Amino acid sequence: MTPLERTALGLERLLGPSTAVTDPALCEGYARDESETDTVTPACVVRARSADDVRATLRLANAHDTPVFARGAGTGRTGGAAVTEPGVVIDTTAMNQVVALSRTEQRVIVEPGLVTAALQALVEAEGLFFPPDPQSAAWSTLGGNVAENAAGPRAYKYGPTRNYVLGLDAVSGDGTLVSHGRMTRKGVTGYDTTALLVGSEGTLAVFTRLTLALTALRPAVTGLWALFGHTHDAARAVTALTARGLDVRCIEFFDGHCCRVIDRADPALGWARTEAALVIECDGGDPEAVARTREAVGALCVEHRAREVLVAESVDEREALWAVRKTMSRALRALRRFKLSEDVVVPVGALEALLDAVAEIAAREGLTMPTYGHAGDGNLHVNLLWDDPAERPAVERAVASLFRATLDLGGTLSGEHGVGVLKAPFLGWEQGDALIALQRGLKAVFDPRGVLNPGKIFARPSHRGC
Amino acid sequence: MTPLERTALGLERLLGPSTAVTDPALCEGYARDESETDTVTPACVVRARSADDVRATLRLANAHDTPVFARGAGTGRTGGAAVTEPGVVIDTTAMNQVVALSRTEQRVIVEPGLVTAALQALVEAEGLFFPPDPQSAAWSTLGGNVAENAAGPRAYKYGPTRNYVLGLDAVSGDGTLVSHGRMTRKGVTGYDTTALLVGSEGTLAVFTRLTLALTALRPAVTGLWALFGHTHDAARAVTALTARGLDVRCIEFFDGHCCRVIDRADPALGWARTEAALVIECDGGDPEAVARTREAVGALCVEHRAREVLVAESVDEREALWAVRKTMSRALRALRRFKLSEDVVVPVGALEALLDAVAEIAAREGLTMPTYGHAGDGNLHVNLLWDDPAERPAVERAVASLFRATLDLGGTLSGEHGVGVLKAPFLGWEQGDALIALQRGLKAVFDPRGVLNPGKIFARPSHRGC
Repeated sequence: MTPLERTALGLERLLGPSTAVTDPALCEGYARDESETDTVTPACVVRARSADDVRATLRLANAHDTPVFARGAGTGRTGGAAVTEPGVVIDTTAMNQVVALSRTEQRVIVEPGLVTAALQALVEAEGLFFPPDPQSAAWSTLGGNVAENAAGPRAYKYGPTRNYVLGLDAVSGDGTLVSHGRMTRKGVTGYDTTALLVGSEGTLAVFTRLTLALTALRPAVTGLWALFGHTHDAARAVTALTARGLDVRCIEFFDGHCCRVIDRADPALGWARTEAALVIECDGGDPEAVARTREAVGALCVEHRAREVLVAESVDEREALWAVRKTMSRALRALRRFKLSEDVVVPVGALEALLDAVAEIAAREGLTMPTYGHAGDGNLHVNLLWDDPAERPAVERAVASLFRATLDLGGTLSGEHGVGVLKAPFLGWEQGDALIALQRGLKAVFDPRGVLNPGKIFARPSHRGC
Repeated sequence: MTPLERTALGLERLLGPSTAVTDPALCEGYARDESETDTVTPACVVRARSADDVRATLRLANAHDTPVFARGAGTGRTGGAAVTEPGVVIDTTAMNQVVALSRTEQRVIVEPGLVTAALQALVEAEGLFFPPDPQSAAWSTLGGNVAENAAGPRAYKYGPTRNYVLGLDAVSGDGTLVSHGRMTRKGVTGYDTTALLVGSEGTLAVFTRLTLALTALRPAVTGLWALFGHTHDAARAVTALTARGLDVRCIEFFDGHCCRVIDRADPALGWARTEAALVIECDGGDPEAVARTREAVGALCVEHRAREVLVAESVDEREALWAVRKTMSRALRALRRFKLSEDVVVPVGALEALLDAVAEIAAREGLTMPTYGHAGDGNLHVNLLWDDPAERPAVERAVASLFRATLDLGGTLSGEHGVGVLKAPFLGWEQGDALIALQRGLKAVFDPRGVLNPGKIFARPSHRGC
């Protein structure tokens, strides 16, 4: 028996065959996430029901040097949950309970497998609000969101998931269960290991419980969309909006490709012949103030040559537009056989230059590269679409050119998707050797045998670029 | 020559005697910070002018196993910058330049020795805002603020310093200069080592450059103070305010002792015969909305039996009150010969119970324990005042009782002052062995020879409780 077979058999004996699944037909469904990357079928999937199941799995994995891949709903875009070499999966989706909700403390304790949108519905019914809104919120789990430090449109005002994690329990790579962080709004006792774990992409520890901060629900929400004849006008409007500091919760950008997708999905919205659009929302406790902010935003867009500013008068209008926005990723995927979604970030003032670079790269490589995203944060999702596998080298060149342009503009390679396996070969483009060595050292403290999510963030020596 | 003498001599030769100061009379002034702890005079003070000076110091210190204590203005309250054993000090106050300020990006790059209030004045002149406002802002440096993850009243709305640090350059304990973080508003490439360094109290690295996020300056600011006949009423008003989610930037609490101090400092304020007071400020972009919020806050205080609600109509009135608030710490110190200031945090709903515990401990130990602080965050500064050194055992018992009560209420031992040397013996009361072992492991990655700020956060085996 190989060490991996021994691990799988040991887990089956220890946890029972309904928790430790080894049927290849069932295991196959746990190999992939929503990214284009090569995977292998795991030898065993542990459908964890408790922190004890997670500990038992990691202890056995350490004994046999078995790679362990933790996952929530598998909605990641960079292969963070992909099984890239023979090993074991820990599926946390059955650990989906709300442990405690406090209205007074505006705080909730949950298990990591709870779906983000389910939490949001639950707390909103109590007059509370969990701001992070990744596009995947209807399916993705909070554990996955914390592992990737997920964000979304509202992060412009409210910040990413990190800002809402007060503490967490996690089983380190070595199998030790550790309580990190605190139950209070504030606290500086010891190192902020909670923040270190947020965004660590399953390479340091597997979360078993999350203590999340909430805010009060803002009763007043309003929005508008502004349609432009040129991407430059939209980019300049974004810069002006962020500099003005209006109380806006999101500033979303859509390029001409995306506007045409939206027009096809809902012609009644009137997005035909638009080369760039911004969707902007404002929220707050005071409906009159929120309405005044929306008016100021609209006026500023008109100053920046918006051809049309459409106010979402009703909740229905707002929801219709967001429904299209949320299906954008799938709509784009339907256009071609293959799709890769990048999520680079630049300083807001460099958005115009980044959009020019994207257009230039797309023209040079003969690719369609629809671009949209969280422009207020300088975070754009640049999509690469292609039909013919023979175009793959052009896609790889385009990605490399995009990353180079992003870094030349003072940017970073990921705003919310993480490094995973797809961007691991590029980590050294952004970060110096000293920082990478330091991070490998931190990983070794949590995971001395390197069993957790190998090859993610830090490339294996053998790994080749995407 | 001892290894320490070799380090001091080596620094003097390498950096010159005006940068590497060894005159004991000059060095003596660098032994202490603003905390009550035993110190020794350092053998050498490096008045660093550049990252290179910091690197040279740490390299030599590593070669000779010499303890190194980095400091800004030395305003810390837990001995974070105190020289607790023979070694070398790095004074960063001469590295105080603004490297770059961008209005478009709402971002500033500074050296760590810049005084916080100087930065605030500079960015406010540009219509920008740096929210963290520790009581020491007029003297303390940004490097020190970042090392302690300083906060202050406005953290209730805006969060602590951590939320404003995008990236930083720092010399790790082993002498390596590393660039952490990013220049963009958002980013998740690799581990959040920036957040790990924020609040690490000089035990992992010495900062040489900070990239800080700013926000737009809020033009409208207004405030009120509410005077109560009983601390319970004030505590319940705080809980009601936080639960309501009104857009308030700070909720400051003062107990009866503090109200009497304020009354003596400025009788015109009318705080005589008050047993508890709240000072609440609101800010925003819309003066009418801010005024309406203030009215709602006032009404809520009256509902909770405030005997009087005084609106700060003018900037002058607001500033008069804050001037008293800012000198509170010194005014309390003047009451007695010795003062210790704790800064525990509890869940907001437990404030009432914590205040009862403080009153009970003070009565039992025969001490005066004036308490004030950032009640909206559940963060109270509990002060212990005494004249006679013979009372020290009672003070130590009172501190231990306070910490026990705090933890029993689900709290944490520090909201913004850090652990330093004074709370190091109590770290194990709050955190489990596994978490402490993990943190020691993280320290060893940055500082393998343990030269940086030894005995801070993690107690030396020989160290005794305060």
